[in-house]
Amino acid sequence: MGFWKNLFSGSVRGESPEAMASSVNYGASGEEFPLGAGEVSSQTLPDSGSQSLSRFAGSNVRVFFSTDRDLDLYELEELCDAVGWSRRPLRKVKKAIQHSFLVVSMWEVRGAKRRLIGFCRATSDHAFNATLWDVVVHPDYQGKGLGKALMKFLIKKLRSEDISNITLFADPHVVDFYRTLGFMPDPEGIKGMFWYPD
Amino acid sequence: MGFWKNLFSGSVRGESPEAMASSVNYGASGEEFPLGAGEVSSQTLPDSGSQSLSRFAGSNVRVFFSTDRDLDLYELEELCDAVGWSRRPLRKVKKAIQHSFLVVSMWEVRGAKRRLIGFCRATSDHAFNATLWDVVVHPDYQGKGLGKALMKFLIKKLRSEDISNITLFADPHVVDFYRTLGFMPDPEGIKGMFWYPD
Repeated sequence: MGFWKNLFSGSVRGESPEAMASSVNYGASGEEFPLGAGEVSSQTLPDSGSQSLSRFAGSNVRVFFSTDRDLDLYELEELCDAVGWSRRPLRKVKKAIQHSFLVVSMWEVRGAKRRLIGFCRATSDHAFNATLWDVVVHPDYQGKGLGKALMKFLIKKLRSEDISNITLFADPHVVDFYRTLGFMPDPEGIKGMFWYPD
Repeated sequence: MGFWKNLFSGSVRGESPEAMASSVNYGASGEEFPLGAGEVSSQTLPDSGSQSLSRFAGSNVRVFFSTDRDLDLYELEELCDAVGWSRRPLRKVKKAIQHSFLVVSMWEVRGAKRRLIGFCRATSDHAFNATLWDVVVHPDYQGKGLGKALMKFLIKKLRSEDISNITLFADPHVVDFYRTLGFMPDPEGIKGMFWYPD
């Protein structure tokens, strides 16, 4: 992620996940889904709706997905800090969230406490294309299939909105992760390019 | 552009320009800029505002840029037909234009007649990122520096909105074109990826 930190002075980052592992959603109410031990499978994803609930087998820890964009920005900043992203002005983060087409957050719930453990958002023209940004899973929750579940939830939501072209910019070490989800790098030699001021 | 036509059944295309050459803007009113013969230079771009006017030296043909998104969709379809793109439902094109952050059209004016000769739009989170889509210059108007002028106008507009990360997906044969404008392919190995349904 050095590129993002240096080139854009911390104003842009998270174009690919620092960590891809496990994830699910939070909602004021949610459906519950059984999970294999330590693994969030695609079956944990809801057929419809923006809220779902998963539970780690054999524990009282639950994990939720939410599309509610009324997030505590300090909590989001804390999550981004945990994966080493440089800080961005909260005013701009708030604006970016407001103007994203889809925002997905992932929450762990232990008893009465909930914790933001993952995040992703997508910009879109609401018709053809969506582009994913700020994909992140907290390091403590990586390696459990939650990143995959987060992405599958997000893809499902975008597909339900009739978006057929989903794009992203992936760091080299997560290209294979995205490939397993059906993302193709450079199809027919098409290059992702980034504008850099003179 | 075969990939876009085949993979996404014509629902997505124009992620890179079919033709990159010359361009300027239309507005109900506009400033006029001198031009070198057959070449639209960067000096033709307005310092601010969404409308500008350029004139091909030694002719009564003028070229305008506009950010007005109230376009005749049939005229836009005709432009896209001219570069061989497969047709998209106008209902979705309309929606995509409505929900784009920035729409730039390029017009040729001969006397009382005006003609749409170029187009580009950008999705954005209004804060950090913008992604360019549907970049097109009519084949009759390529090779005159208008594509470059169109892109410079667009970049200037995005920069004026404090967008610092401008991205696009370029066909191999236009990567060098975008490079001259300051776009970098795969910086630090970051890959543009596209989701493809199973």
